[in-house]
Amino acid sequence: MSVKKLRFGIIGAGRIGKVHAETLAYRLPEAQIMAVTDVNREAAQALADKFSIPTVAASSDEIIADPQIDAVLICSPTGTHADLIIQAAKAGKHIFCEKPIAFSLDKIDAALAAVKTAGVQLQIGFNRRFDANFARVRKAVATGEIGKPSLMHIISRDPNPPSPAYARSSGGVFVDMTIHDFDMARFLMGDEVEEIYTAGAVLIDPEIGKAGDLDTALIVLRFRNGAIGTIDNSRKAVYGYDQRVEILGSEGKIETANCYPNQAVISGGTAVHRDLPLNFFMDRYTESFSTELKSFTQAVLENRPTEVTGIDGRIPVAMALAARKSYDEHRPVRLSEVEA
Amino acid sequence: MSVKKLRFGIIGAGRIGKVHAETLAYRLPEAQIMAVTDVNREAAQALADKFSIPTVAASSDEIIADPQIDAVLICSPTGTHADLIIQAAKAGKHIFCEKPIAFSLDKIDAALAAVKTAGVQLQIGFNRRFDANFARVRKAVATGEIGKPSLMHIISRDPNPPSPAYARSSGGVFVDMTIHDFDMARFLMGDEVEEIYTAGAVLIDPEIGKAGDLDTALIVLRFRNGAIGTIDNSRKAVYGYDQRVEILGSEGKIETANCYPNQAVISGGTAVHRDLPLNFFMDRYTESFSTELKSFTQAVLENRPTEVTGIDGRIPVAMALAARKSYDEHRPVRLSEVEA
Amino acid sequence: MSVKKLRFGIIGAGRIGKVHAETLAYRLPEAQIMAVTDVNREAAQALADKFSIPTVAASSDEIIADPQIDAVLICSPTGTHADLIIQAAKAGKHIFCEKPIAFSLDKIDAALAAVKTAGVQLQIGFNRRFDANFARVRKAVATGEIGKPSLMHIISRDPNPPSPAYARSSGGVFVDMTIHDFDMARFLMGDEVEEIYTAGAVLIDPEIGKAGDLDTALIVLRFRNGAIGTIDNSRKAVYGYDQRVEILGSEGKIETANCYPNQAVISGGTAVHRDLPLNFFMDRYTESFSTELKSFTQAVLENRPTEVTGIDGRIPVAMALAARKSYDEHRPVRLSEVEA
Amino acid sequence: MSVKKLRFGIIGAGRIGKVHAETLAYRLPEAQIMAVTDVNREAAQALADKFSIPTVAASSDEIIADPQIDAVLICSPTGTHADLIIQAAKAGKHIFCEKPIAFSLDKIDAALAAVKTAGVQLQIGFNRRFDANFARVRKAVATGEIGKPSLMHIISRDPNPPSPAYARSSGGVFVDMTIHDFDMARFLMGDEVEEIYTAGAVLIDPEIGKAGDLDTALIVLRFRNGAIGTIDNSRKAVYGYDQRVEILGSEGKIETANCYPNQAVISGGTAVHRDLPLNFFMDRYTESFSTELKSFTQAVLENRPTEVTGIDGRIPVAMALAARKSYDEHRPVRLSEVEA
Repeated sequence: MSVKKLRFGIIGAGRIGKVHAETLAYRLPEAQIMAVTDVNREAAQALADKFSIPTVAASSDEIIADPQIDAVLICSPTGTHADLIIQAAKAGKHIFCEKPIAFSLDKIDAALAAVKTAGVQLQIGFNRRFDANFARVRKAVATGEIGKPSLMHIISRDPNPPSPAYARSSGGVFVDMTIHDFDMARFLMGDEVEEIYTAGAVLIDPEIGKAGDLDTALIVLRFRNGAIGTIDNSRKAVYGYDQRVEILGSEGKIETANCYPNQAVISGGTAVHRDLPLNFFMDRYTESFSTELKSFTQAVLENRPTEVTGIDGRIPVAMALAARKSYDEHRPVRLSEVEA
Repeated sequence: MSVKKLRFGIIGAGRIGKVHAETLAYRLPEAQIMAVTDVNREAAQALADKFSIPTVAASSDEIIADPQIDAVLICSPTGTHADLIIQAAKAGKHIFCEKPIAFSLDKIDAALAAVKTAGVQLQIGFNRRFDANFARVRKAVATGEIGKPSLMHIISRDPNPPSPAYARSSGGVFVDMTIHDFDMARFLMGDEVEEIYTAGAVLIDPEIGKAGDLDTALIVLRFRNGAIGTIDNSRKAVYGYDQRVEILGSEGKIETANCYPNQAVISGGTAVHRDLPLNFFMDRYTESFSTELKSFTQAVLENRPTEVTGIDGRIPVAMALAARKSYDEHRPVRLSEVEA
Repeated sequence: MSVKKLRFGIIGAGRIGKVHAETLAYRLPEAQIMAVTDVNREAAQALADKFSIPTVAASSDEIIADPQIDAVLICSPTGTHADLIIQAAKAGKHIFCEKPIAFSLDKIDAALAAVKTAGVQLQIGFNRRFDANFARVRKAVATGEIGKPSLMHIISRDPNPPSPAYARSSGGVFVDMTIHDFDMARFLMGDEVEEIYTAGAVLIDPEIGKAGDLDTALIVLRFRNGAIGTIDNSRKAVYGYDQRVEILGSEGKIETANCYPNQAVISGGTAVHRDLPLNFFMDRYTESFSTELKSFTQAVLENRPTEVTGIDGRIPVAMALAARKSYDEHRPVRLSEVEA
Repeated sequence: MSVKKLRFGIIGAGRIGKVHAETLAYRLPEAQIMAVTDVNREAAQALADKFSIPTVAASSDEIIADPQIDAVLICSPTGTHADLIIQAAKAGKHIFCEKPIAFSLDKIDAALAAVKTAGVQLQIGFNRRFDANFARVRKAVATGEIGKPSLMHIISRDPNPPSPAYARSSGGVFVDMTIHDFDMARFLMGDEVEEIYTAGAVLIDPEIGKAGDLDTALIVLRFRNGAIGTIDNSRKAVYGYDQRVEILGSEGKIETANCYPNQAVISGGTAVHRDLPLNFFMDRYTESFSTELKSFTQAVLENRPTEVTGIDGRIPVAMALAARKSYDEHRPVRLSEVEA
């Protein structure tokens, strides 16, 4: 009668660590959190208290060494991801790792090699693949519902710019923010990008520019199948989180709208209005965070490949490097140019 | 460090019992299910297995007698509600009871009297009050955002008619289906109905007519504040569950749309279309079921009145009786006419 | 090479007279305005100047006697309609008459009898039949696209209440405003109403109540085919003219939205909004006014029956009388009760 | 009492000539068509018959020489535009000319010089400026309603590709189709474009590719004010004409939806759908064609500058040249590069 459970250790008790802990604790009967750790021990303790996690581990080493743990959830800063993947893989743990794996392709390749050698499962945290809107778009393309795709648009705007300090440490907008859109582009089209052209600007916060980053970007993607598309990124949309896609195909188009906290429309004396869309990723993508962990957990329990593999974690980083190179050199850049 | 939990016993392991069990098990850290019972013991056992409920009780008596249980969740057939409320109240248990309390006002009054005498908390399962759309409409009325209300419409249509057998045992469409809309009418307007006129028909399934019931109804409500409104009920909408409201006020109107599984719109060669709305109450009202139990749990833990009281359970039954009387006598009927 | 033109005389140079004159002058190559008259000669003169109408007639007698005129457009006050129809019919003129024909069925019957005797064409100004939205709904019902209709809703709200003086002279809200909705109900359903129940109120302007009229109404219609429906009327919607319908059938529903001056949506820092809908009938129904006159003109030129006959002008008045009787007597009233 | 009328001669009785003739004949009291000519005399005669135009001129020379004509409407093939402008300007006629003025900047400059020397008025047929949707977007930008613009998208797709023969003679997609979008970009942003990058493809009809043209394009625009934007062009959208824009600014965004023949939504057993959007430019932009001619007529009658000047006709051609050069050379191209 007892169901087999996947036993998790969580490394990193920050914003996304909390989201995942809540999912594991309250949404996934087949998951069990054994331990949590964070360089900030108080944060780890608070998480443990909130979700009745039995152990607060002293370090990621302790988590990875724990024989009672089947899988690690890597939610620590990007700079630690690749090494933790290697270490966990060597210890035979299955791995769920937040994006990006690393800022350099070399480091990513080393991590993926370790995973391959160890034969463990790896899933990258591209949660948007599990969002109902984007899954519906993918389905429309995959089933031929809109025919052969020719044009694609991804709109992806944050409600507020990060601090310049964050902009600096995050590796820049392409590897921090656009990386989700790069993943979406590949996922939705079911095809790979060959060439990227970036038009960017600093229009929101000059400090972001001083930190060497951009806050506004239009990225043109050319796919192998001949289709072309754009990604529209802004670090500030006053009306909130803006996440939409549109694909035109030979038999039709599919486009998504934002998600709203309610479906009420008010008609007053001066305008017809509704409340602002769901604000930022934790509200907008709540369900997808839950679904991606369910997907990972079941893949491991049933010994199937994960839905978002290590290669899926590598290619968007290559795209980010190409996007930056295009911006710096003011010309279209082929993805092959950013390979070693 | 340990949080106080409210310990529940569940009476009835049918469709709605399962929904509530899942909420208590996976969504509410402050709740704990101690036991479940059902006249169908296998159903109770299955529920216990699925949600790791320690005890399958032999009867509701056993649940109500259990000193480890703080609150009972009454999800059994309507005919048992009033007696279970009385019994649980006498045992000092707090009570969450599904609608309707009973088919007769006498029985309801006896149950409410027992609750009052015992000084326990009672909440009725009018989950729609906790739905984001309807809560937003209520807010618009309560805050004066649309001024003084004058006209109201509630559209409430099921995707499929019940079996004639169900129609017979359910007490009829008004007390089974419209009762939610009667509650919404009071809740949204923040006012009481004085008079009801019903135009009804059997247009979907003649067997429902033979069972003495209707499958199509328009109910006109006259509120004390002078406003007037309608409820539109149909037992069959081929496109799925249709749940909308609209209120016109002196300063504007507010109207809600249905909720959809995704926000994707497909433009093809013959039409612009989207997927059907969320189908039936378990999909459409998932969040509200969770929120209503959270509201009850917190009200009990914090010793506050519940948000949906016994009177809120009684009045919609009186409205259902008046609606039926109006239909039978083909004239407007005042609510005072159905009081003893 | 020269096209046959229908030569019009216009009786009444008020608001609706101007609308029709503009259509005849600038939209209908097959129409020609020969003369206009109004008890206010200056208004007639202004219209003649604006649209290059050659003759300002001294009276309606002069128009009706003019052998160069093929058809009269009756846009004068309701009290004059029936007599003008009789007079014009006797003179062998084809007639386009604004609604309502008269406030009493006797007068209407006399007018229709004269039309029949004379063998002239008569069309009543129920322009909404020619509106793209409502025509689409009619098509959905007529073709079986939504199956057999069971429930219908008509929302019809004005942006501002009329003056109490107008309310008094207009014959009341049912014969003045709801009459369009009564026509819509018959037209959209393709069926006749048997019984009417009216719930009404004075919620906007007490002076309208003192004038013996209502400003807010819900009217329940029972059709011969068993379907039921409502008409929602308000004399004041602060957001503008609100004109929507919805029909539920056994195979689906069709519902219309309001029409807007543009399709732009603005997302700002506090709400997502759009401009108010088209305000009042001259903006909202511009095209339908043009189409109805084209329909009349072609029907006469081609000697076909008009699309909105005298009977179509009579029945909504009977419905208005039944609606008022229901309101006065606080009970459902059958249409047969208002027949002599 | 008599109103001053502007007397027009129409050169070219093709598709757009007919549209303009209907506007002048039936929508603009202040306009009068004196004559029409076309190399296809039968087409000119048919137009004259339909709109009661007194004279069918033997040639454009005859129209331009006619002292009774105040203004010429140039609707002939593009190759003739510049010479006709020069000729008409010398004859002192005011000029309304369809886009583009010419395929080369030299020819355009010669035409504009002639207009300047003659001191006549010139308006270019960029009708979309007069469309209610786009005018609303322009207003939002001009008034600061959405703050300082940063990102812009124009979607502009035709329902069906032209014949390869047309593609060849039209000068290519940029100067034939995108030219409207180039004008929109300048108009909506109220700013000039400095640099253009084009990603294009032949995905719809290989014959178009063989003719040296594209059928699918994404064009990135960089504005002087730092904003960036895209134009999305496709020669084939199976669902019909797709014309939308979106601008993100520091205080919000504005986006437009397509226009539909009606506002009816049908919910059936498998999908919620509505009819396809208005199909192609004559349906979609009917009102704007009327408004642009009204604007021109009034500008001339009141001796004011036209709303779309010769320079407004020149710059989009320069943009088209830069777009093509970018496509050919696979790099971003500055507008200054296409100047002589």
